[in-house]
Amino acid sequence: MHTSPEALEQILSRAASAAPVLAVLPPRSRAALLTALGDALDAERDRLITIAESETGLTPARLGGEVTRTAVQLRLFADAVVSGAHLDARIDEADPEFVLGARPDLRRTHIPVGPVLNFSASNFPFAFSVLGGDSAAILAAGCPVIVKAHSGHPELSEATAALAQRVIADRGLPAGTLQLIHGQQTGVAALRDPRVRAGSFTGSTHGGRILADIAAARPAPIPFYGELGSVNPVFVTSEALASRGPALASEYLASVAGSAGQLCTKPGLLFAAVDDAFLEALATAGASELGTSEHRLLGPRITDTYLEDVDRVLAVDGVQPVVIGTSRVDEAGNGWVTPTIVRVTLETLRANSEVLAEEHFGPFSVIVEVPDGTPLAPLVGEFITGSLTGTVHLGEHERSAAAGADAALSDLVTALSRHAGRVLFDGWPTGVAVTPAQQHGGPWPATTNDASTSVGTAALGRFLRPVAFQNAPSAFLPAALLDENPLGVPQERSAAGESISWGRAVG
Amino acid sequence: MHTSPEALEQILSRAASAAPVLAVLPPRSRAALLTALGDALDAERDRLITIAESETGLTPARLGGEVTRTAVQLRLFADAVVSGAHLDARIDEADPEFVLGARPDLRRTHIPVGPVLNFSASNFPFAFSVLGGDSAAILAAGCPVIVKAHSGHPELSEATAALAQRVIADRGLPAGTLQLIHGQQTGVAALRDPRVRAGSFTGSTHGGRILADIAAARPAPIPFYGELGSVNPVFVTSEALASRGPALASEYLASVAGSAGQLCTKPGLLFAAVDDAFLEALATAGASELGTSEHRLLGPRITDTYLEDVDRVLAVDGVQPVVIGTSRVDEAGNGWVTPTIVRVTLETLRANSEVLAEEHFGPFSVIVEVPDGTPLAPLVGEFITGSLTGTVHLGEHERSAAAGADAALSDLVTALSRHAGRVLFDGWPTGVAVTPAQQHGGPWPATTNDASTSVGTAALGRFLRPVAFQNAPSAFLPAALLDENPLGVPQERSAAGESISWGRAVG
Repeated sequence: MHTSPEALEQILSRAASAAPVLAVLPPRSRAALLTALGDALDAERDRLITIAESETGLTPARLGGEVTRTAVQLRLFADAVVSGAHLDARIDEADPEFVLGARPDLRRTHIPVGPVLNFSASNFPFAFSVLGGDSAAILAAGCPVIVKAHSGHPELSEATAALAQRVIADRGLPAGTLQLIHGQQTGVAALRDPRVRAGSFTGSTHGGRILADIAAARPAPIPFYGELGSVNPVFVTSEALASRGPALASEYLASVAGSAGQLCTKPGLLFAAVDDAFLEALATAGASELGTSEHRLLGPRITDTYLEDVDRVLAVDGVQPVVIGTSRVDEAGNGWVTPTIVRVTLETLRANSEVLAEEHFGPFSVIVEVPDGTPLAPLVGEFITGSLTGTVHLGEHERSAAAGADAALSDLVTALSRHAGRVLFDGWPTGVAVTPAQQHGGPWPATTNDASTSVGTAALGRFLRPVAFQNAPSAFLPAALLDENPLGVPQERSAAGESISWGRAVG
Repeated sequence: MHTSPEALEQILSRAASAAPVLAVLPPRSRAALLTALGDALDAERDRLITIAESETGLTPARLGGEVTRTAVQLRLFADAVVSGAHLDARIDEADPEFVLGARPDLRRTHIPVGPVLNFSASNFPFAFSVLGGDSAAILAAGCPVIVKAHSGHPELSEATAALAQRVIADRGLPAGTLQLIHGQQTGVAALRDPRVRAGSFTGSTHGGRILADIAAARPAPIPFYGELGSVNPVFVTSEALASRGPALASEYLASVAGSAGQLCTKPGLLFAAVDDAFLEALATAGASELGTSEHRLLGPRITDTYLEDVDRVLAVDGVQPVVIGTSRVDEAGNGWVTPTIVRVTLETLRANSEVLAEEHFGPFSVIVEVPDGTPLAPLVGEFITGSLTGTVHLGEHERSAAAGADAALSDLVTALSRHAGRVLFDGWPTGVAVTPAQQHGGPWPATTNDASTSVGTAALGRFLRPVAFQNAPSAFLPAALLDENPLGVPQERSAAGESISWGRAVG
């Protein structure tokens, strides 16, 4: 499926016309649209899941959970829009006594950037696709969205967009509010168009980098928010291993195997002074249903890359299989696989990090055997450039407040926070809560822009821009900046006179 | 002056070592450093102003005001650091009843990005230079700063950096906290170095674009915050013109002539249905001291560009001088000029917008004669891509609340807010208040990244990155995320149980 240049021109033109309409839509109307979209998705879930299952090979259980998550995140953004915290409304009162001379009345809020192009992902046909997190954030911010459908689920994308367009039309909103395009070249042409004011993307580092470079090279560059590849290192202390090694082994396999490992948060490297009990438990889990149930990969391209990746790793000297996966390719070119986990020494990792310490998209992970007593913090900087997550498994004593002074563990946590967007304790990185405090984004190559998140309500900040109004008559002010605060949003006021004390409270 | 590759290597290494030390410095210590830097600047103002005057040709009065502003903004950032609002601390309580299944305890704050490279400006030897707004924001965020000195004031840069380094050493902080480099190639080499994690810049569109492209093309791209060129359109309504045209004319000339027009907020285009009274008042002001006092331009390169620019504009058919400036070049190559203001019809502007509607750095501005009754809003989109500011002068009646319904004026304000970062009423864009609600940044080419500001406390957000901690034992949490909140920072809590109602309040 490809959108023609003529159709794209119409789509861009409709998005540009919709932008000013959406920008002035009251927060409650914007929230009502998001809620209605969530409800419509819920109402048609069975029909959509059937399409999704055939296009992606993901299980109905997993897809059902994903529809729920997608509907919930639309509702979460509805609440966020009404709360108005994202507007960061600031009011500086006029101040004739200001230390630098009379200060004008200054009021600052955030406005929508305009039409946004959202490249959807293969591995989340609902949650990072037509009505997924990025679209929800874009609409919540008050921007029109043009979704570039992923080629892995075009029919589902069409069905979801049609549903959204019905809801939009029913509410009397412009047709340019949410539109769908197909085809790689169409996506690139849209990204280069001056009417598009920001881009978002979830996918591979390779593809994301190409698009980020295009966005940066435009005559008028635009922000491009790409969520790319991630290794998600996990560190298990010897105390944790001693106290619950076998349990950790099977949880690890479950995290690697879920959704056939096709998650950006799949743990790709596990560092630990692994012992026989851990390896045996892992082998046992690998021989159970968890390790032997075949799962279809999303499509032929992911299949080819995954099988090549695994072969490349297994060919490395010193790589020892712990869970040996199987694979076959069906007549449609889709792989059917079971998980593979290997182990290597620290020396082997060091000598082959360009193969072993990179993301392998699929149910594959590498255990790095760390000699007991090795400082863990330096390994983060050595092997991890940037990652969405970093995980630590601690023992009971290490977790207690009294152990806060353990400098080596504090160093490890600090190192992880410098190289990852989310640091987890005693859990697994797969499964990303959609909440206000979530952070899904980390240093390159995890994301193109690590100052933002693609999950959680903070995600809508990506599609806003600050504007200040100086000495504006109230008739010309946005509602969020009025003294009477009709929207009831948080307003940060700086009173006249307070500049006199600046810097005097400290020193 | 050029920094050698060997010296640069040492500087980068020192900055990288300083980063973790500064990152864990308590907010009060960070604030105390900023306050001490402001105090030291104040204490040595006379000596520094003497150097600055000889290097830049700016007047002692203007430079004195600039030192005060620079010291005040260091103190303002000290207060901002202690307040902790920039940390945007969020705490999601663990929630077993969460709509998507049990939610972990999630806590999100912001951490410093690491060493930042700050390219300083020619036109603000204090306020956008070694200890200027960007450096203050970088240090406030907890990052080491490497300042690329502007070649227009190397001696002042050295003197200011030496003063800063003394303060830093006195407080026992690392030498890598603030360092100075010289030379264009050195700046580019530093920008390409992986130890540098963000860049900031104040200067020309041409130079800023080159650097932004380098930052985007790195193997690991970094954010680059460039504040570039701006036209700063001013719209005067006929009612404003009728009620106070002559006063507006001389205020306009003062705004164009101040600091020899070498301000990024200088009004470059004034749209009005100008009448004889306005033009006569402007000519009279031009013949007064305001229009006839020679002012030195910052340096030979700016002189050459400015004189070429003015010649190019004056050669355009239909350009009519109103205030005719003089110019001479001294033996050092510095221009000495008086302001020039010309007028053109809308048709002439339309036919020559690539010459007339671009920034001319210096005391030059263009009046666009708009036939009375012409809708003003469409002119914004037609002639302004992006601008730091946009200004409207209203009449008494138009300013009153009852006139808020004037659709044409509302449209003008909306259009300005879409193309500018700050919208002013009944004032002039030069003179930028340093306050919490300030916004100094706008759509390309005003800035490379219009989601941020380079003036005001929000500026420190450019050098921070969010990190979330999941189920972290309190011993491993940053102080801002502790339940007992020892820093007293704002914390946004999401209570358990509230997800049930998401999206239900609206619809």
